Amino acid sequence: MSITVVGSIAYDAVRTPFGERARMLGGAATHFSLAASFFDTVRVVGPVGEDFAAADLEVLRTRGTLTDDVSMIRDGRTFFWAGEYGWDLNSRETLDTQLGVFGDFEPDLSDEARACDVLFLANIGPQLQLSVLDQCDGPRWTAVDSMNLWIDIARDDLVAVIERVDCVLLNDAELRQLTGKPSLVAAAKEVLAMGPSAVIAKQGEYGAVLISHDAFFSLPAFPLESVVDPTGAGDTFAGGVVGYVASQRDQSLDHDLLRTAMAYGTAVASFNVEEFGTERVARLTLDEVHERVDQLHRITQFSYSPV
Amino acid sequence: MSITVVGSIAYDAVRTPFGERARMLGGAATHFSLAASFFDTVRVVGPVGEDFAAADLEVLRTRGTLTDDVSMIRDGRTFFWAGEYGWDLNSRETLDTQLGVFGDFEPDLSDEARACDVLFLANIGPQLQLSVLDQCDGPRWTAVDSMNLWIDIARDDLVAVIERVDCVLLNDAELRQLTGKPSLVAAAKEVLAMGPSAVIAKQGEYGAVLISHDAFFSLPAFPLESVVDPTGAGDTFAGGVVGYVASQRDQSLDHDLLRTAMAYGTAVASFNVEEFGTERVARLTLDEVHERVDQLHRITQFSYSPV
Repeated sequence: MSITVVGSIAYDAVRTPFGERARMLGGAATHFSLAASFFDTVRVVGPVGEDFAAADLEVLRTRGTLTDDVSMIRDGRTFFWAGEYGWDLNSRETLDTQLGVFGDFEPDLSDEARACDVLFLANIGPQLQLSVLDQCDGPRWTAVDSMNLWIDIARDDLVAVIERVDCVLLNDAELRQLTGKPSLVAAAKEVLAMGPSAVIAKQGEYGAVLISHDAFFSLPAFPLESVVDPTGAGDTFAGGVVGYVASQRDQSLDHDLLRTAMAYGTAVASFNVEEFGTERVARLTLDEVHERVDQLHRITQFSYSPV
Repeated sequence: MSITVVGSIAYDAVRTPFGERARMLGGAATHFSLAASFFDTVRVVGPVGEDFAAADLEVLRTRGTLTDDVSMIRDGRTFFWAGEYGWDLNSRETLDTQLGVFGDFEPDLSDEARACDVLFLANIGPQLQLSVLDQCDGPRWTAVDSMNLWIDIARDDLVAVIERVDCVLLNDAELRQLTGKPSLVAAAKEVLAMGPSAVIAKQGEYGAVLISHDAFFSLPAFPLESVVDPTGAGDTFAGGVVGYVASQRDQSLDHDLLRTAMAYGTAVASFNVEEFGTERVARLTLDEVHERVDQLHRITQFSYSPV
């Protein structure tokens, strides 16, 4: 039993007010795997080019992530993204995107990847996500991420994906865009009506909220005095959430379990942004994660006298 | 013993995607008083013009707010603000501002207003706030609000105010602007170093955070499916916070008390935005407020096993 994640493995060039990296390991599946592998076995599915360094494959394998389904494409180039962040890190400009081997990617999962217990569809084209869903043998729990581009150009396919998953992770602007509803609660309810039992709205520096059919949960981001590079924070958060869910084999996958999962996702993501790319999470320990979950618990408590 | 608030009493013209009002009771001191008066006696200080309706004075007095220090200026016009909100209510454009009687306002507090237990300096010019501080007989607790305009044109005076108060309430963009620090935590720490023991950063639809010298607290906004008019939400929140603090006469005014106070402020503010202007809070009951505090408690809890 394991988690299968399908998504990008990439090189990123990033400039922030606090420094830059010309070429560092990145990609949604990479950040997801480094976080989820704290909690369960992760199998990553995605293509890389001939330029992909053996040392970066080792980083991906840091906590035992299985890379048999990472396909190295001859004469191909690894997906490349370049971006620059504004002074408060809340705005970001894409300077370059080179799809490379991702342009022709057609997921073809191994038997082991198909037999996953939990499936995460990272942000790739909805038609590819549908193909992965068709290949898998009914995972116990499935979550999906997406982005504004697919809502713009492939909304019907994305809705078809959403109808078949348990949990949708989007940022709040994407939820509003997908549904045309200005209220986040109303937007999430519309997505729930498509089929999923949970919607998690990512809110960047403000945290995340969880909306189920009959319950709501809000969790702040972990407060940091210094943020260096937000790249991959959302995928790291997803990795913590999905990894924690996968690890709770004996628990019912309900709203309360997802609350706790979000605390783990938030904790791991808070480390991700303290250094560039995968640098911090690659050497992170589970004890450090537990400590931040504990702090998150303390910074969200208040006492009052029920009337 | 009572709360004194000094600030604007106004007429607002507001257009949102859900309706409009051509002329409704508004102003920071108005919204503050309607919220704070749930918890303690409020005395409001501010000028109105001859156009100010007796019926609106009655609204201000809904829960016993004392209006002896509301000065009616002959031949003057009440402060007027007109604005319009965007589709998701997160952007707002000011269409008109007419200072009216507020242009010549020089606060001259009655003995009763000076003898307040708790003082709230709503968003007015920092020099006026300094004058109020000079007039008061050392209130037990003082909080201040301000805005980007004063940070731009009267930063030194605003810092002089901040040095003399216990709590600063600003939105997070204003805290960043005031300190030049992109990190909210770092910005708040710089403000704490000026003298206050607490900084509350308002974050609109995302809630608010409390930063003290050795503790941090984050509270989401109350989740609403329908928001009609955000005007006055920040002042209503401040009224709930300051009112609750004032009502806890036997408690030490520490971080934990402010956490609870923020829950009350958040609860009252959530009603404010459900209808235009003061319409909802004017007929709100304390039982309804308690119920939302209870719900806020429930939507912020998560369980985990400390390691």
